[in-house]
Amino acid sequence: MTLPRYQQLAQTLRRQIDAHVWLPGEKLPSLRESCKQSGLSLMTVLQAYQLLESQGTLVSRPQSGYYVAPSRPLRLEHGSLHTAEQIDVNDAIFDILKAGQDSDIVPFGSAFPDPTLFPQPKLARSLASAVRRMSPHSAIANLPPGNEDLRRSIAQRYALQGVEVTPDEIVITSGAMESLGLSLQVLTQPGDWVAIESPAFYGVLQGIERRKLKAVTIPMDMEQGIDLAALEQAMATYPIKACWLMSAFQNPQGCTMNPDKKRQLVDILIRNQVALIEDDVYAELYFNGDRPNPLKMSSYRQEILHCSSFSKCLAPGFRVGWVAAGNYASRIQRLQLMSTLSASVPVQLALADFLHQGSYDAHLRRLRRQLELRQNAMRSAVLNSFPPGTRLSKPTGGYFIWVELPGKMDATKIYQQALAKRISVAPGTMFAVDNRFSHCLRLNTSFEWNTRAENAVKTLSELVYKEYNRHR
Amino acid sequence: MTLPRYQQLAQTLRRQIDAHVWLPGEKLPSLRESCKQSGLSLMTVLQAYQLLESQGTLVSRPQSGYYVAPSRPLRLEHGSLHTAEQIDVNDAIFDILKAGQDSDIVPFGSAFPDPTLFPQPKLARSLASAVRRMSPHSAIANLPPGNEDLRRSIAQRYALQGVEVTPDEIVITSGAMESLGLSLQVLTQPGDWVAIESPAFYGVLQGIERRKLKAVTIPMDMEQGIDLAALEQAMATYPIKACWLMSAFQNPQGCTMNPDKKRQLVDILIRNQVALIEDDVYAELYFNGDRPNPLKMSSYRQEILHCSSFSKCLAPGFRVGWVAAGNYASRIQRLQLMSTLSASVPVQLALADFLHQGSYDAHLRRLRRQLELRQNAMRSAVLNSFPPGTRLSKPTGGYFIWVELPGKMDATKIYQQALAKRISVAPGTMFAVDNRFSHCLRLNTSFEWNTRAENAVKTLSELVYKEYNRHR
Repeated sequence: MTLPRYQQLAQTLRRQIDAHVWLPGEKLPSLRESCKQSGLSLMTVLQAYQLLESQGTLVSRPQSGYYVAPSRPLRLEHGSLHTAEQIDVNDAIFDILKAGQDSDIVPFGSAFPDPTLFPQPKLARSLASAVRRMSPHSAIANLPPGNEDLRRSIAQRYALQGVEVTPDEIVITSGAMESLGLSLQVLTQPGDWVAIESPAFYGVLQGIERRKLKAVTIPMDMEQGIDLAALEQAMATYPIKACWLMSAFQNPQGCTMNPDKKRQLVDILIRNQVALIEDDVYAELYFNGDRPNPLKMSSYRQEILHCSSFSKCLAPGFRVGWVAAGNYASRIQRLQLMSTLSASVPVQLALADFLHQGSYDAHLRRLRRQLELRQNAMRSAVLNSFPPGTRLSKPTGGYFIWVELPGKMDATKIYQQALAKRISVAPGTMFAVDNRFSHCLRLNTSFEWNTRAENAVKTLSELVYKEYNRHR
Repeated sequence: MTLPRYQQLAQTLRRQIDAHVWLPGEKLPSLRESCKQSGLSLMTVLQAYQLLESQGTLVSRPQSGYYVAPSRPLRLEHGSLHTAEQIDVNDAIFDILKAGQDSDIVPFGSAFPDPTLFPQPKLARSLASAVRRMSPHSAIANLPPGNEDLRRSIAQRYALQGVEVTPDEIVITSGAMESLGLSLQVLTQPGDWVAIESPAFYGVLQGIERRKLKAVTIPMDMEQGIDLAALEQAMATYPIKACWLMSAFQNPQGCTMNPDKKRQLVDILIRNQVALIEDDVYAELYFNGDRPNPLKMSSYRQEILHCSSFSKCLAPGFRVGWVAAGNYASRIQRLQLMSTLSASVPVQLALADFLHQGSYDAHLRRLRRQLELRQNAMRSAVLNSFPPGTRLSKPTGGYFIWVELPGKMDATKIYQQALAKRISVAPGTMFAVDNRFSHCLRLNTSFEWNTRAENAVKTLSELVYKEYNRHR
């Protein structure tokens, strides 16, 4: 079967661009010239150019013509900048999420914390008590922005940390997933460019795909964190509409930005007048010292949509999150009215009640201690049993460790073999739009460190070693 | 300030098209001819043509050229077909929703049923009991498609009505708003055409706006219901990707399709292979006889996404809805995992528990009786006090009446004047993208028929008469 003529022409042009016949930023022959040269009709040439434009290979400039788009990937001094014009989320993500539902499988690949870590009886009492006192009008009274008591309690927690957030800018949502999605919708239109981390939480990739956005992926390092030079370069190169990242216990690598990096990042945002979506769902889970300060603490706070939830630290199944949305609060409310109307009322009331009880901080202290102990135990086990050359992150909070296997090892294979042995892990491919983390794994360290877990790490290390020896 | 040349050219072409220089469906001069004729550059002409294409005035055909789009509005034998390339939801909608939160205002404009109509103590007991028995793993176990017991109970209710729906095709959502939104996302890409009712539930207009879709609005009549000839014509004229409507107690007009109309509608869908989003949230609220059969009952059921919830008939604040999504169930699940992850777990468990108690149908019988009595009372009061020429819908279920004021009366003015007197009504402009229902009101009849309500109708009628007399 032969391709239509415009597709043939597009392919030819694409090959020429790849071969640097036309350099990034260079003007292509005009449509008229191209017609003359190719002998094709104007419509055909136009379609070819438009196809390449829709693929991001060309850009059109009003009153001027078609130009080769800035090159991708860009080689930068401090790393490399990659872009994705179209993100396709791997089907595997859904299979992995589903595997987590099977209690027969050791859930190292799970995104959820060990559910037994939470004060369920107390939450149940709060729920029962809240719903007994619930006014029939509560459904209407708790329309967006959501329950007032709960918003005030959340604002108080911000205040105690020194972050200026008013109850009015908080919108209660169905988990942080909804607040992140609403934030992205408020800041972007389909086709816009967004700067994201690489590797990133797969929810970011899904959000970008769903909204039909284009992404510039900013390199992360499990020790150094985000590459600010690359971010700066991205802002200079693409019309970035929003930046979406995690400043504390980044998922999946676990890195936390130091104060200096935070200042520089905010400077870049201010200079470029780009709004920030700050996903901060793990911040309460620090192991020592204080809660890491969010970027929201900066003077740029009105342009920072700080998203968090109770799902990682108190009540996973309740699906209650929020966004402190600064200048965007009323637009977020409207979007929510259009999409889910409001978060479920009884669970909002239950959390407001629970926060008033005053035992939340005691629970968090216990939770942090347990997560730290479990992470240390599992980290040591992995460190002691995986092949030499394995790199392991050492997060100071949260419940993930990031494992870089040595050499060219294929973590997706490990994932499949482990699953056959009833152990789930999260392969690195879940966290990027390409294969650059295909030698990495994310492990959930929140579960009880017992013989079952020990044996599972042992089995994993055997699988890894088998693959390692094949590659030597 | 002068317009850029391409915009000037676009305006000129637009004027020519409006003046029938170029007829709908006719080919426009080629780009080359147009360049020659206008003396403008190819890029400028191209931009003008593309601008008109983006506005829906022109359509381009591969390998051929630019054509004038089919005319809008089309004049049809049985009504007229209107389209909206871009929908802007009036800010007033949000103000009206907010006004409903003020208990000091008589809530005739509210979309919510009287909250005192629901079995709150029983629901509270179900919630307390469910959450006591809640396993720590429930958050994960109840990921999409949602709680299995609840899905089975819903499937049983379908089965009792003779509708073939399996628990597997049901996805539990955060209210019907989420299920409708997910359905729209699964069926369409931004820029696609969708057929909707006119007037329609404003959530439809918001959903279309949010997704950047184009709409063909199909005329409705409060007695005759949807204009099938117009729908058929719409399908023949535009590449409709989905149809979105209500077959029972349509919001806002209250009409229910008769079985013959349903058959014809399904035939049209099948002939055109267009999927249907069926919003059926009021179906349980019938006054006499049986629950109206949904379109989902037809042989085309796999292509019908039947959306409903417990928000209108049992538990308004819980925000639990569902979609019986046929062929689209797994795609809906994936989209939900990306957007809100899952519906709140405790409220799902509570509803599953409540449905097992077996008192749901007794509650519904009481609810229907009360809604009927209240609707009759309010309808009579409006009928007896509003000016001659007023048309009133007579729905056989639900809790809205639709009021068409005589002549050229401005219902938005009535809305404003009524609000000043602490009475809310829903002006017709909320339910369309243009002003064609600006002489209409929707009234919520679910509230207790007492002196306050009587006086409110009296005040309304005085406002209406004042306006009526001004127009005579």
